[in-house]
Amino acid sequence: MSREGGVREAGAQRTRQALLAAAAHTFVEQGVNAPMRAIAGRAQVGLGTVYRHFPNRAELVIAVYRHQIDECADLAVELADSPDPRSALSRWADAFVEFLVTKHGLGAALQSEDASLQTLHSLMLDRLVPACGLLIDAAVARGQLDPSVNAYVLMRAIGNLCIVGPGYERQDARAMVARLLAGCWLDASSTSVADGEQALH
Amino acid sequence: MSREGGVREAGAQRTRQALLAAAAHTFVEQGVNAPMRAIAGRAQVGLGTVYRHFPNRAELVIAVYRHQIDECADLAVELADSPDPRSALSRWADAFVEFLVTKHGLGAALQSEDASLQTLHSLMLDRLVPACGLLIDAAVARGQLDPSVNAYVLMRAIGNLCIVGPGYERQDARAMVARLLAGCWLDASSTSVADGEQALH
Repeated sequence: MSREGGVREAGAQRTRQALLAAAAHTFVEQGVNAPMRAIAGRAQVGLGTVYRHFPNRAELVIAVYRHQIDECADLAVELADSPDPRSALSRWADAFVEFLVTKHGLGAALQSEDASLQTLHSLMLDRLVPACGLLIDAAVARGQLDPSVNAYVLMRAIGNLCIVGPGYERQDARAMVARLLAGCWLDASSTSVADGEQALH
Repeated sequence: MSREGGVREAGAQRTRQALLAAAAHTFVEQGVNAPMRAIAGRAQVGLGTVYRHFPNRAELVIAVYRHQIDECADLAVELADSPDPRSALSRWADAFVEFLVTKHGLGAALQSEDASLQTLHSLMLDRLVPACGLLIDAAVARGQLDPSVNAYVLMRAIGNLCIVGPGYERQDARAMVARLLAGCWLDASSTSVADGEQALH
C-alpha cells in the first residue's frame, strides 16, 4: 500500500470507529430506528459518509453489536491485572449492563428469525463468558469472591435482571445488578449463600 | 344450612384444597399438561371428582394460580411477626420463587391473550406486593435491610431471575435469588450498594 493509501485507510478506520460509537450512543438514547442523520450529526460526518460505511441499517446494527462485544471483551483483559479484582468485576459488570441495554434494542431491530442474530448471540457468549471468567478467577484468587460463582450463570442472571419494562426501569436494573454482585462477595453476608441455597431447596 | 349440609360442604372444601395442592405439585413436576389422572391419583380421589370440582383444565389452572397467590400472601402475614425479619424475608422469597416456577407453566397453559391471565397477574401484584412490603418493613425496622429496597422492584428482579432455560436452570435461579437478597442486607458488603449504583451510572 502506498503511503497515501495507508493514510486514507487509517482515516477511514477512524471514521468507522467514530460512526460505531455515535450509533451506539444514538441507539441507546433514541432506539435503533433513530434517524441515520442523527448518527451522522453526532459523528460529525455527512449522511453520505454513513451510507458509504454502512449501506443499510441492518449492517450498522450488526457492526455496533460486534463492536460492543469487542470493547467489552477488551475491557476484561485490561481489568484482569487490576490490583483490586472486586472493583474490576464491578466495572466490567457495569460495561456489560450497558451492552445489554443497547443489545435489547439491537435485537428488536433485526428480525428475530434473522440468522445473524443467532450468530451474534453465539459470538457474544464465546467472547464474553471467558472474559468474565478472567475477572472472576482474579477475584477468587484474592479471596474476594465466592468460588462457586460461575461466569455463564452470572451473565445469564445479569441479562435477566436487565429485562426492563414499565415500573422496572434501567436504573432499577442497574441497582439490582449491583445488589446481585454485592451478594457474590465472600464478606457478603453473615449467612452464607450456600445456606441460602439450602433453604431455598 | 343443615348440619349434614355443613359436613358435606366442609368435606367438599377439603377435597378441593387437596386437589389444588395435588395439581400444583403435579404441574411443577410434569408441566400443566399433566394427565388429570395423575392429579386425581396424587389427591387420592377418582377422576370424576376432579371434573366435578374443575370442569376443564383452564379452570383448574386458574384455581391453582389463585390458591398459590393466597398461600403466598398468607405466608407473609404469618412471617411478619417473626423475631428474625431477615430469615422471614428469605423464607418468603423461597415461597415466591416456587410460585413463580409454577406460574411460568400456568401462563403457558392459558392462552396468552386470555383476559384471565391479565386478571391473575393484577391479582398477584395487588396481593403480593403489599405482602412482600410487610416483610421488608419489618426488616428495615430492625436495621437489617437497606431501606431503599422497594417491594415491587425486588419482586420484578426475582421474577426476572426465575426465567430459566438451558444452561440456567431452576437451581441456578434459586442460587441467584439468594445472592440478590444477600446483597440487600445492610451488612451485605463493605462497599455500599449506593456506591455500586453510582459506579454503574
